[in-house]
Amino acid sequence: MTEKPAETSTTIHPLLARRWSPRAFADRAIDDGDLLAMLEAARWAPSSRNEQPWRFIVARRHADPQLFARIRDCLAEGNRVWAADAAVLLVAVSSTRFAYKDRPNGHAGHDVGQAMALLTVEAMARELWVHQMGGFDRDCVRVAFGVPEGFEPITAAAIGHMGDPAALPSPLDEREAAPRSRRPLSESVFGGMWGEAAPLLTEQGPPRR
Amino acid sequence: MTEKPAETSTTIHPLLARRWSPRAFADRAIDDGDLLAMLEAARWAPSSRNEQPWRFIVARRHADPQLFARIRDCLAEGNRVWAADAAVLLVAVSSTRFAYKDRPNGHAGHDVGQAMALLTVEAMARELWVHQMGGFDRDCVRVAFGVPEGFEPITAAAIGHMGDPAALPSPLDEREAAPRSRRPLSESVFGGMWGEAAPLLTEQGPPRR
Repeated sequence: MTEKPAETSTTIHPLLARRWSPRAFADRAIDDGDLLAMLEAARWAPSSRNEQPWRFIVARRHADPQLFARIRDCLAEGNRVWAADAAVLLVAVSSTRFAYKDRPNGHAGHDVGQAMALLTVEAMARELWVHQMGGFDRDCVRVAFGVPEGFEPITAAAIGHMGDPAALPSPLDEREAAPRSRRPLSESVFGGMWGEAAPLLTEQGPPRR
Repeated sequence: MTEKPAETSTTIHPLLARRWSPRAFADRAIDDGDLLAMLEAARWAPSSRNEQPWRFIVARRHADPQLFARIRDCLAEGNRVWAADAAVLLVAVSSTRFAYKDRPNGHAGHDVGQAMALLTVEAMARELWVHQMGGFDRDCVRVAFGVPEGFEPITAAAIGHMGDPAALPSPLDEREAAPRSRRPLSESVFGGMWGEAAPLLTEQGPPRR
């Protein structure tokens, strides 16, 4: 198990601090109940007008081998090399229009992202790991699963138990150990005007907890 | 405190089951450390190419009254009536292009959504509540904070301690008690072809945990 907790400036919930996106997955199925719970967590995500713009295509490697192969074959080569070993492959698809008045839903991608994040938190609570991938062929998914107009494949994900990084081909084995990094909060959290760190951040003294 | 836990088909983590989006906020500041931790949770969200396309404009009602008023004045009237009482207002802004090769980032909205969801989970861990709003004037935010080209205000949020629903104007007081609802998983989780419930869902027997 490769642990690389976020180097946070203040303590955050362990389910969030511990999360990262491994490439090394164990050759081990995940419990159907765990997978259902992850999807249930996504189901209860918040969304604009409660539109729930998310749809998921889900395949278990051992139980749904043909389905699994259909998703796998749409992944970019660089992802297929490791994601094909995961217990589950998933594609998240967004509905691009509101059911309400059939208007474009500018929040659809955002809300699918919320569902994916909550799915990931539920996974972490069950010692399961999620690695999302932008690298897949959207048209391939459209054809393979008959995704209709008005829906857009947005992200793929590999899900499973963590595996041994040494089993990954080079240079992925080394990358697996690379530290995680993020911009400091002062470059993302603004107050007075754009680009000015929020007063919350610039006030002196350490956080009160 | 109005509790309305999600009526889940299987047990999910209490931080996720308990979450909902209240309109009744207490007249009580939130601890700066709690707010920092929420932003830190957002900071460590996953994103495509680790682009971290999120930016946040954040104002505390008591400590940053002028900033707070600038956000408040950009909210739709229907939101302002209750959100003006929250301890914190926030606007999440997405960077629409990858720094990498300056290409359009089709995952930006999705990844901002992930950051907002993790911020919300951290809030729940601290007994704080988040209510996101699509109803605000994006151009108003652009002007008020000098949001540059290449960035798009995507969602606003009210954050605080939960308040007394009876203090809300009618009909919001009644709406606050309305049950939460979501489509069943079988209408969102597909397998064989689009619209067909995934085998995981149709196999007989209750979830194994």
